[in-house]
Amino acid sequence: MFVIIVYDIKVERVNKVKSYLRENIYWVQNSVFEGEITPSEYEKITKKLKEIINEEEDSIIIYKFPMEDMMERNIIGIEKAPINTIL
Amino acid sequence: MFVIIVYDIKVERVNKVKSYLRENIYWVQNSVFEGEITPSEYEKITKKLKEIINEEEDSIIIYKFPMEDMMERNIIGIEKAPINTIL
Repeated sequence: MFVIIVYDIKVERVNKVKSYLRENIYWVQNSVFEGEITPSEYEKITKKLKEIINEEEDSIIIYKFPMEDMMERNIIGIEKAPINTIL
Repeated sequence: MFVIIVYDIKVERVNKVKSYLRENIYWVQNSVFEGEITPSEYEKITKKLKEIINEEEDSIIIYKFPMEDMMERNIIGIEKAPINTIL
């Protein structure tokens, strides 16, 4: 499946979220990550994110769809992290 | 079509982008908007965003897909702006 993860995390926890996601999928912008993952990776990632964040204060939205090619990506302005670059 | 718009805009222009998008689609988190729009609205929005931003310094990614129900949304933590609320 393909996921886009966007988050709004309190400053004291944001780096932990960022580092964890960088190990697993691609950073594309500010607080946005995306990537192709397996269902078991999806379970692992959501479980870990729940452990890191404070669910009363932070917010993460995971958009998931079966295949990346269902979606089209239009970039306006600079491309922060070219999708094809492994970070 | 359904779009998710994420942006990373310099502080001097970010409110202009935010206000413009609020008039057209739904704010869901920090710098994330989403909504169902027509192809002509899509053209209008991308044209206007290009006018507002500095394409050398700012970055906007528009993810678009034919239908909202191709996508599943998983919210972890707080829901900043409930999708069903018209802002």
